[in-house]
Amino acid sequence: MKRSPITVLFGLIFVSLIGCQQTNEQATQYTGDDAVAISLQQQALNSNLAYELVESLTVEVGPRLAGSDKDLVAVEWAVNKLKGLGFDKVYQEAVQVPVWERGHASASVTHPYPQPLVITALGGSVATPKAGLQADIIRFDTLAALKEANSEDVKGKIVFIDHKTERHKTGKGYGITVGGRSRGAVAAAEKGAVGIVIRSIGTDHDRMAHTGMMRYKEGVARIPAAALSSPDADQLNLMLKRSDSVTINLSMSPQSHGVATSYNVIAEVTGATKPDEIVLIGAHLDSWDEGTGAIDDGAGVGIVTAAGKLIQDLPQKPARTVRVVLYAAEEVGLVGGKTYAKDHADELDKHYIAAESDFGAGRIYQLDFRVNEQVLPALQNLTAVMANNGVAKGNNTASGGPDVSMLPNLGVPVASLRQDGTDYFDYHHTPNDTLDKIEPAALAQNVAAYAQFAYLMAQSELQLRPIAKKQ
Amino acid sequence: MKRSPITVLFGLIFVSLIGCQQTNEQATQYTGDDAVAISLQQQALNSNLAYELVESLTVEVGPRLAGSDKDLVAVEWAVNKLKGLGFDKVYQEAVQVPVWERGHASASVTHPYPQPLVITALGGSVATPKAGLQADIIRFDTLAALKEANSEDVKGKIVFIDHKTERHKTGKGYGITVGGRSRGAVAAAEKGAVGIVIRSIGTDHDRMAHTGMMRYKEGVARIPAAALSSPDADQLNLMLKRSDSVTINLSMSPQSHGVATSYNVIAEVTGATKPDEIVLIGAHLDSWDEGTGAIDDGAGVGIVTAAGKLIQDLPQKPARTVRVVLYAAEEVGLVGGKTYAKDHADELDKHYIAAESDFGAGRIYQLDFRVNEQVLPALQNLTAVMANNGVAKGNNTASGGPDVSMLPNLGVPVASLRQDGTDYFDYHHTPNDTLDKIEPAALAQNVAAYAQFAYLMAQSELQLRPIAKKQ
Repeated sequence: MKRSPITVLFGLIFVSLIGCQQTNEQATQYTGDDAVAISLQQQALNSNLAYELVESLTVEVGPRLAGSDKDLVAVEWAVNKLKGLGFDKVYQEAVQVPVWERGHASASVTHPYPQPLVITALGGSVATPKAGLQADIIRFDTLAALKEANSEDVKGKIVFIDHKTERHKTGKGYGITVGGRSRGAVAAAEKGAVGIVIRSIGTDHDRMAHTGMMRYKEGVARIPAAALSSPDADQLNLMLKRSDSVTINLSMSPQSHGVATSYNVIAEVTGATKPDEIVLIGAHLDSWDEGTGAIDDGAGVGIVTAAGKLIQDLPQKPARTVRVVLYAAEEVGLVGGKTYAKDHADELDKHYIAAESDFGAGRIYQLDFRVNEQVLPALQNLTAVMANNGVAKGNNTASGGPDVSMLPNLGVPVASLRQDGTDYFDYHHTPNDTLDKIEPAALAQNVAAYAQFAYLMAQSELQLRPIAKKQ
Repeated sequence: MKRSPITVLFGLIFVSLIGCQQTNEQATQYTGDDAVAISLQQQALNSNLAYELVESLTVEVGPRLAGSDKDLVAVEWAVNKLKGLGFDKVYQEAVQVPVWERGHASASVTHPYPQPLVITALGGSVATPKAGLQADIIRFDTLAALKEANSEDVKGKIVFIDHKTERHKTGKGYGITVGGRSRGAVAAAEKGAVGIVIRSIGTDHDRMAHTGMMRYKEGVARIPAAALSSPDADQLNLMLKRSDSVTINLSMSPQSHGVATSYNVIAEVTGATKPDEIVLIGAHLDSWDEGTGAIDDGAGVGIVTAAGKLIQDLPQKPARTVRVVLYAAEEVGLVGGKTYAKDHADELDKHYIAAESDFGAGRIYQLDFRVNEQVLPALQNLTAVMANNGVAKGNNTASGGPDVSMLPNLGVPVASLRQDGTDYFDYHHTPNDTLDKIEPAALAQNVAAYAQFAYLMAQSELQLRPIAKKQ
């Protein structure tokens, strides 16, 4: 690439301006809550606590599927860690969670080009018959295309939904394709299919399938549901290019075992002057069973715990209580979040704002809210200091994160600290969700942002309600 | 990064010079063999044949472990393809290959932090007892460190060799660590170990273990041998940081079943004036069983077949015969290569030069030889036209590739067309060795290089012998 002298000149000017800007920022004198926020940022960036927590959780507990033995090991781990960190209060609240066991899962093409396929069972799927389930596949671009299909074409077949998830910083590709995972089995069964396989809801090209929850519907046949790795989905396409009839055999032995008791684990920094008002920062403690749950959601556990600890250790506590909630059983249906909302119904009017960290360890670049539209400019002014940590002001359409997503309709304001999710769906819900995928410096930047957010919210004089109902 | 005006100025001059050079190259008038070579390059870069061959092999045959049913499907595929392409001769030669079946492989940590591990059996490994093999691990940085260990420390344990493979364009990291895979079990058993796990010989961070051949030694106990994925090796390290005693359970059921007959599949373009003299370009037809053998070595099969086809279709055949050899059973011990050398012993003095493509589909950047040192400059002059395709002149230390690596000691000159192997060991010997890892344009660049190489060698008037023996 050639650069014209003019371009080079502008480049030099640009570099110089950046330099000046940095110098000016460094020179800014912060006062009051902003000064505390800056100090929290510096402490967060100099601390390894969040990473140590994720390492401890992923190594010493490892996979912790809701309702499994390891789920309770994780609860014990969390209670001990939070107590050890010296929070004002640490307690746990029972959550009834569904128990689903993965068993084995294998698949192969039996015609026209016999060979194994890499699959994983979708969470909640029923088993195949012991001898496996063998049928021709019928391919659809999307869940929507399946819904428009003729039942006669689908009947007796294994549906293959081949929707590719696009990579994007916001992770928005996931929302577009995930319906095929959660609702594909019902749509397929309604057309008479005997099973369903989907192209993994993921952005990678690894020979690793992405699991995740699927649902059945009362009155519709429960058919086995699995995800194919991206290269295996490609392989089926290349076979369909060569042959009208591609037959596969699915063999899976997952089992559901009713419900078990798990726990939301909660720690608090008691507010100095408004202790009954709550700023909630959460993450979920459970994970899928194939990875060690590092990015989903060990990262979140580390981030909000370390952020809470920084506030716990402040010489002067903020006005409101900061409540760190490590939710149970997010993966299997936001069970901990729903239980919390129900159990704390009487107290929700005292929840000033809530936010969950559940999107890996990519850096936070933007702070979105869902608050009274009138107060947004003032709130953005109040949190402007977070720009120092790379967090720009955002919009008023936050969901808050999965386990707090039901709160806005119950009147509770929420915030979304938007993370760079460019590679999140490469690893999400796969065996590849392991500690090595986390960059410690990015994790610390998240801690800084959550600590600043929680502190500023706990000190805020603004009235954030009422909020518009979610659509 | 700031650029000084001087640096910018040099940059501009450099860019301008590059521009001039390209213009000059484009204007060069080639004559004789060089003109044919340039035409071969253009045809190769405009052809999709190699990619179509790899796609066909990986989709229609898929995994093809030597000695398996699919191995013979691959042989039939190759014979049909080569005949269909219209080579002057197509034939097959029997090779007796060992039969090894993978069975299942699983592992878990049982103490102090119970959780599953991702492993794969190493090729040739024996099984564990049915109930699994449970023992404490003992970690070594390298095979060399294991060899220096005290038997009393190793006895009754499962050895863990934790040697990381460094990423490098040449792939040289592999040569440094692969001894732990091939010879680790013998070294461990000699110290009294009951099993061995190694950090995968790979450069990725995927939760996928790399298989590959291992060997036993007469008179030394045969212990089960497996590879751990890189994140699982990390996980063991983090456990060893916390506890002196880490116990794992290995469960594997591979079986050896004697020998079976496979075939080297051979195609020839008969030389116009020296038909009994041979320029050999090879690749191997077999693959490991967990991927579809796209980069290892579907790519090579596509490259040398498409290169041979371009020469087959020349209006004027070159002087010597160009022989395309698709070797059997490379992965399990260079069995096809060794058999070829033995079966063709009488004819080896008629082999002008040999080269194998077995390093994926990365672009070729350099041409190395192993020829009479005196002739190297003239030979580099003869092949200078290949620079047009990005192939620079190299050195005189070529090995030629695995299946021709025994030929130099039998007097046969070889060449290595060096490929960029930066990401080759991310996928090598894993389920991730699939078609999506091949870039069609890079594959075509390889075809161009092999076609030019084979043609120029088949026309060369140079005497390449005698060569120095390999060390």
